[in-house]
Order: sequence, then structure tokens, then C-alpha cells
Amino acid sequence: MDLTHLSLEQLSNGLRRGDWSAADLARHCEENHHRHEPVLQAYKTWNGEGAIATADLADRLLTRGIDLGPLMGLPVSVKDLYAVRGLPTFAGSVEPLGPDWERPGPLMGGLERQLAPVMGKTHTVEFAFGGIGVNAHWGTPRNPWKTDEHRIPGGSSSGAGVSLAQGSAVLALGTDTAGSVRIPASVTGQAGLKPTHGRWPQEGIVPLSPSLDTPGILARSVEDLAFGFRAIEQSLGRTSAPIAVPAAMSCLRLGRADAFFLDDADPAVVEVYDRVMTQLAALGASVRGVELPGCTEAYAIFRQGGLAAPEFCAFLKAELPDRMDRLDPVVRLRVEGAESLSSVDYLLRVRTLREAARRASTAFGMADVLAMPTVAITPPRLDAIQDPEAYRRANMLVLRNTSMANLLGLCALTLPIGLDAQGMPVGLQLMAPPGAEERLLAAALLIESHLGKPVDVLGSPRFPQ
Amino acid sequence: MDLTHLSLEQLSNGLRRGDWSAADLARHCEENHHRHEPVLQAYKTWNGEGAIATADLADRLLTRGIDLGPLMGLPVSVKDLYAVRGLPTFAGSVEPLGPDWERPGPLMGGLERQLAPVMGKTHTVEFAFGGIGVNAHWGTPRNPWKTDEHRIPGGSSSGAGVSLAQGSAVLALGTDTAGSVRIPASVTGQAGLKPTHGRWPQEGIVPLSPSLDTPGILARSVEDLAFGFRAIEQSLGRTSAPIAVPAAMSCLRLGRADAFFLDDADPAVVEVYDRVMTQLAALGASVRGVELPGCTEAYAIFRQGGLAAPEFCAFLKAELPDRMDRLDPVVRLRVEGAESLSSVDYLLRVRTLREAARRASTAFGMADVLAMPTVAITPPRLDAIQDPEAYRRANMLVLRNTSMANLLGLCALTLPIGLDAQGMPVGLQLMAPPGAEERLLAAALLIESHLGKPVDVLGSPRFPQ
Repeated sequence: MDLTHLSLEQLSNGLRRGDWSAADLARHCEENHHRHEPVLQAYKTWNGEGAIATADLADRLLTRGIDLGPLMGLPVSVKDLYAVRGLPTFAGSVEPLGPDWERPGPLMGGLERQLAPVMGKTHTVEFAFGGIGVNAHWGTPRNPWKTDEHRIPGGSSSGAGVSLAQGSAVLALGTDTAGSVRIPASVTGQAGLKPTHGRWPQEGIVPLSPSLDTPGILARSVEDLAFGFRAIEQSLGRTSAPIAVPAAMSCLRLGRADAFFLDDADPAVVEVYDRVMTQLAALGASVRGVELPGCTEAYAIFRQGGLAAPEFCAFLKAELPDRMDRLDPVVRLRVEGAESLSSVDYLLRVRTLREAARRASTAFGMADVLAMPTVAITPPRLDAIQDPEAYRRANMLVLRNTSMANLLGLCALTLPIGLDAQGMPVGLQLMAPPGAEERLLAAALLIESHLGKPVDVLGSPRFPQ
Repeated sequence: MDLTHLSLEQLSNGLRRGDWSAADLARHCEENHHRHEPVLQAYKTWNGEGAIATADLADRLLTRGIDLGPLMGLPVSVKDLYAVRGLPTFAGSVEPLGPDWERPGPLMGGLERQLAPVMGKTHTVEFAFGGIGVNAHWGTPRNPWKTDEHRIPGGSSSGAGVSLAQGSAVLALGTDTAGSVRIPASVTGQAGLKPTHGRWPQEGIVPLSPSLDTPGILARSVEDLAFGFRAIEQSLGRTSAPIAVPAAMSCLRLGRADAFFLDDADPAVVEVYDRVMTQLAALGASVRGVELPGCTEAYAIFRQGGLAAPEFCAFLKAELPDRMDRLDPVVRLRVEGAESLSSVDYLLRVRTLREAARRASTAFGMADVLAMPTVAITPPRLDAIQDPEAYRRANMLVLRNTSMANLLGLCALTLPIGLDAQGMPVGLQLMAPPGAEERLLAAALLIESHLGKPVDVLGSPRFPQ
């Protein structure tokens, strides 16, 4: 049996019982990687040998009864934006950013101390600036759900979802400034969590827009997402209570916040979404339409470049001035014009977003979580977005629904709810108020317990085995 | 005896023993106010009747043994930038900002709940944007140390120091974005504390530059400053340990950080400063030269308008657009050009300051606190700074030494150390690392215990009695 099909809890328990070793598990990941990577192209840097060595250490400690935490021995993939000891950080750019970016921050350091083997560093859109997942320097991972035509893997954590699909890791670290965890999770049929801005430390991760950047995780189910969330909280020295899943679907107040989020959506996506919302209501959930205030103002700002364009531009100018002229054209597209925004207009944007976020939080009086499609369209074929204007349009539409959680200060996750008419995965996005990650995960666990795990909902992708 | 000459601790103890009432004390303040206000002009809005009513309530509660906290019954003056229930907030501008600015924030609310009588709202530079203390709309308070010639009272909390000097309050609330508590304290012979940015909540106080704005207090001695600090911490629901004053002067490591701070200083100011530093060394303090890293970069940014110009401009445009055309000329001077600063350059300033702050904190390896003159020059006569260029030059020089604590993320205070050749007070500024207010106050208490209270060091100002 391929161990990588087991849940994180099963894997963790089996390791402690001695049913299998961490080294076995890492080797399974390595085998899967070697089999599928030539087609899927998830990784910028593979670290199989290093990961197996870490796994081996974890096994030796576990044999002595030394337990360093829930992620001990569980193979993870890490977006190539995180500083990881001994592995270069390219951040999707032409060359490594240098030794400063090999010193792990608190989040990565916590995983190291739990002895989670790092299988490798996954591809990213250059400096995470894009939701589609393309990279002109290093290539674009292939969406595992259609490998005969090159469909986008979602971005900016473009290799993260693919790394899970190929069975080369059981948990993936990503980052999310406007949807960069949830989009690749959604379009590759995974679950993905963006915590509230500031909940997890951003140090040791290449910044894009510090006002909005959030580390996040992708996993093969909501159950694994919850396991990963609690493990990372623990690694950061916090005690996290077990997540209290509501006793019955009738305890869940689900807000349909779709008025804004279905504009220009693909009918095939809407169909899956509607079907599942109807199903959840039939299962007893209280479902009602809830408007999410602040969306319109926030999206107007986002379309003008938001906060990311000037914040990223300042980072590049201060720390990597030589990269400016060698940017991936799709990234350069986003930075252009940043310099012409005045400081006062930038600060007015910050104010408007703060006020919009204050209003957005009022939506949660009538609903525990808000629901909408994670990505409004089916993941397009790469050849359909070659033209810069087509790219820009697709990028905006792919990012729209997820970016609202970032811009309005919420936490959010995505879980797979079905395949659309193209056979591509559709994700359900849930949003909760700032700091309410436990509530968010509880609602998603309840839904998953009724709909089934992603593999039951979607089947398995049919990439060449 | 005029009760307002007693320390806060004496006043507080006497109130609880029944030696005098809070109403007596408030009436003393009112009498002093009526006697001296026509010359000194400290207040925008006087609230004598309201304050005596609050004092009366405090007396009734104390009689029943109900103690609401250390500031109960102690008359305070409040800079007209704080929202206070029932009193209009002008923020030094042409008309009140409206009812939103009569809802107290957490700091003022804490004082209210302690039943500290608010004697009135003191004058401020319009929107606190200036260190000199002038206000073209409402007049400029008179420095009590020379009333025959109009010397500046320091700003922007221009009425705060004067309110203490006239005996109309025993503690004064101010705000400090670049020195606006410490400058008026220094030039009027008072003590003043600027806590670390973020330590005390800024809500309910009209903002100038939210990245740097800090509420602060002025008092008639360091002892009172420490009393006020702990009372406010308590009102914010925090437990603050008693401040541990070092056993002997030989326990104090004093860094002379004056290399940057004495440029262009008045020799008469330097003379007082040098004498006191020599005296402290003779008393046993370890005194050594310490450079404060980051000053040069921070000052270069400050001279270009810092962060305040664009941040203030965004606030005005968003919340009070009608005020823009009616600004005091000295404020308009500072705002002009803010709009031409690009967002990227603004963010580069933020980055540079953050990095400078990181380096600045390294100065405290070799010294408990750093020392320098609070204000490099003797407070000029108002008629010497009528010309805009003369104003600009004086304003920059007055703000330079204090602004470094704001820009470099430190906490700082000033205490009076003597009179210069003009007979004007000179202040010693002490700076400590972020969050080290207790250390800062302990050092200043030790110094005050050796040098004497301000009244012993300076004598009393000779304004018409």
C-alpha cells in the first residue's frame, strides 16, 4: 500500500506504533516524485536524500520514545519562498536570493524542530505575484487533472497542490496574499487554509505585500488541514484546543455570500456550487443569503494594484534592485505603474480597506461562515492565456473571490466539492472572522464529514501512473 | 497652602486620609487658572465647573471607602486632541471636529473611570503638526519663564506644560509624534514621558502620523511622572510592578549619545547639559560616550517630511477634506509636497526607519539609558520666528533630538536640569529601548533624587502672581 494515501493522523499514529517508519514514508514520497515529476513538474529543488536523512533521525528518536511533535516524520513540501536551511531560495526568480534567505523563520524553524522532512521546494510564480501559477523562468507545473492539455496549476503556490497530488508530500506549505494557497488547492482538488493575517509569523518568508501576506497550508483533506493547523500552532508554542465540530449539520449557519462572487463565473462552476449548497441545506444546514460588505470598495482597489504593487516594488528596490530588470513579464505587468501611485493615495487605500474590513466583520452576525466558489472559473489552458490581456483578465477573475478574505482581514479555506463539466475540480470557499480559524475548520470538518473526503468526492486525477 | 504644590502621591494619600477633598483641590486649580490664564493662555476650553462636579463625586465615593484608582480626584489637563465626553475637540483647527471626537478612547476612558477631574482642554498646534507651539487660529500660549517677552511654550502640546506651571492641573495629557510631549515639558521646566509607540492606545485621539503617534504625560517631577505612568497602566487593566530605583548612582550606566545631538546647539544649553553630566559622573554614575546608530538616516528622512506629511494628508483628505484649505500656514507648510511623494518612496522610508530602529536598539548593550539635551536651543521669542524660513529652521532644530526616539522606536522622557543663560529651562532627555519604560523611569527617579525636584533645580517661574 502507498502510505501517502493515509491521513496525517493515521500516519502519525502508525509511526508511533511502529507500523511503519518515517524513512519508509519519505521513500514512498520519493518514489512517487520520481514517477510523476517528469510530467507534473511541481518542484524547483528536490531534497529527497536530505528528507530521508531527517526521517531517519525522526525514527531513531521515536524508537527511544522521544516525540518532538505531531509533524515528526511527516513529509512536507515547502513553497520556494520560505527560507529553509541548506536549500537555496529562488522565489521563482532567475537566481537564488542569497544566504539571508536560507535562515528559517519561526514557522519553518518550528517544523524543523518537529523533524518534519522537507521533500523539496515547490515552484512559485515569481515573487508570488500572480494567481494563475505561471513562471517564465522555471516553467509552469501541470494541473494533474488534465495532463494531456496543460491546464494551470493555480498560483502563486503553483507547485504546492501538485506536490500533494503526485504523492511526494503529505502536507504543503504555501503563502497567500490574495489567494495563493486557496487557488492552487482548489484547482488541484486539495484543501487549503489561509489563516488571519498576523496569526502565523511571516519572518523568513520572501515578502510580496507585508500588509496582506500570510503563510498557509495545503492538505489532502480538511481533516489533514486541521491536523496541520494544530501542529503548526503547537510548533509556535501555542496551545490549541481540539477543534469542536458541531454535533449536527443543523447547528451550522451557512451564509451564501455569492452576490458579488458569481459575477462572470463559469456556469459549470456555479452548477457544482449550487448543487452542494442545496445538498447542505437538505442535510439540515441553515443556509441564507448574506451580503459581505466592503467587497466592492476592496475589489476596486485590488483592480488598481491594491497594496501589493507598491509594497513589492519597495522591497525589490531596497533588497534586490538587480532583479527589477529581469522580472517575468507577467510579474512586470503587475509592478508597472506602482511608482506613479502617490503615498497619500496608497494611505487612502489602506484606510479604505481598514474601514471595509470593519464593515465586513458585521456579516458574521447572521452566519458562522460565509460560502462561495473558491475560484469562479474552470482552470484555463495555458495556451488560452498567452496574450497579456487574456492573462490579466484571467488572473483578476481567478484571484477575485479569494482576495476578498485578504483585503477584508478574514481567515478562509477551500475544500473540494466536485468536478465541473471539464472534469476539473471545484472548491468551496469558507470565510470566517479574524482569528476564528477554529470555527472555520470546524465548519469545514462538518461539511467534509457529510460530503466525504476529496478522494471520494472527486475520485483520483488520471495523470499517467 | 496651595495644594497644587504637593506631589501626586501626597495629594492622593491626603485625599484618602481626608486631609483635604478633591473638590478643594479642583477649586485651587480653578483659582490658579483664573489668576494666571489671562497672561499664560494655556487652555482652549475651560471645564472648571465640570471638573469640580467630578471631584465632588470622587469625594462622595472616597467617603464611602470606594477607591477607583490612583488618579481619583487628581485634576488633569487634556490636550485638545483627545476626545473627552462633553467637551468639543478642535485639535487646534478652526472648528470642532464633530461628535465622533467626543467619544473617549481607552486611555481617556480609563481616566474617566478613575474619576480624574478634567480641568479643561489645552491648546495644541493645529493637528499637532509642529514642535514650536504656535497656533494662528487660537493664539500661542506664553512660556511662563519669561512673560514679558513672548517665548514659545513648545509644541505641539503647547498648553500642557503651561497648564502645570499655572497650577491649574497636577498632571497633563499630551501626545508625542516627534517630541510633542517632551519639548513643551522641557521648555516650561516640567517632566514629560513618551512611552514606546503602541504601548498606550491611540484610539480616541486625533491622529497625526499613526506610525509614530504616542499618547504621553507631563508632570511636575519625575516622581509624579512615574505615579501617572503606573496609574494609566492600571487604568488600562495592566499590573505594573513598582519601579525599582537602582540602589546607588554607581549602578547607573549612562550613555552620552550626544555626538549627533549637539550639532547647532546653543552653547548655553550645552553648558547646563555638560555640567549635569559631570555632576552625575561625580556622583558615581558610569558615563561613557555611546553612538546611537540610525540617527543620520532617520533625520534625513525626517527633514524630507518623514512619514507624518503623507499620513496626515491622507487623514485630512479622508475625514476632514474641508479643513485642507483652512490650515494654519505653519501646518500647511509641512503638508505641502506630501502629495508628490510616491507610495514606493514612502514604503522605502518605512523600511529604512525599521532597519534604523533595529540598529538603534543595539546601543543599549553598553548603557541602561542614553542621555542628551531634550531641546538643543533655548526656546526662541515668538517674534524671532515669524518668517516662514526662520520658523522652519527653528522647528527642525527644536524637534531633532526628540524625534529620534519616535523614529527609532524608543521610549524617552525629559526632566529639568537647570536654567540656561537666558533664564530658560533646560531638559535632559533619556532614551531607553522599546518597552523599557520602567527602566527609563527608574533611571530618571535616581537622577531626580540626587539633583532635586524641578522646583529645587529651577526655582519657580516669575510670571505675574
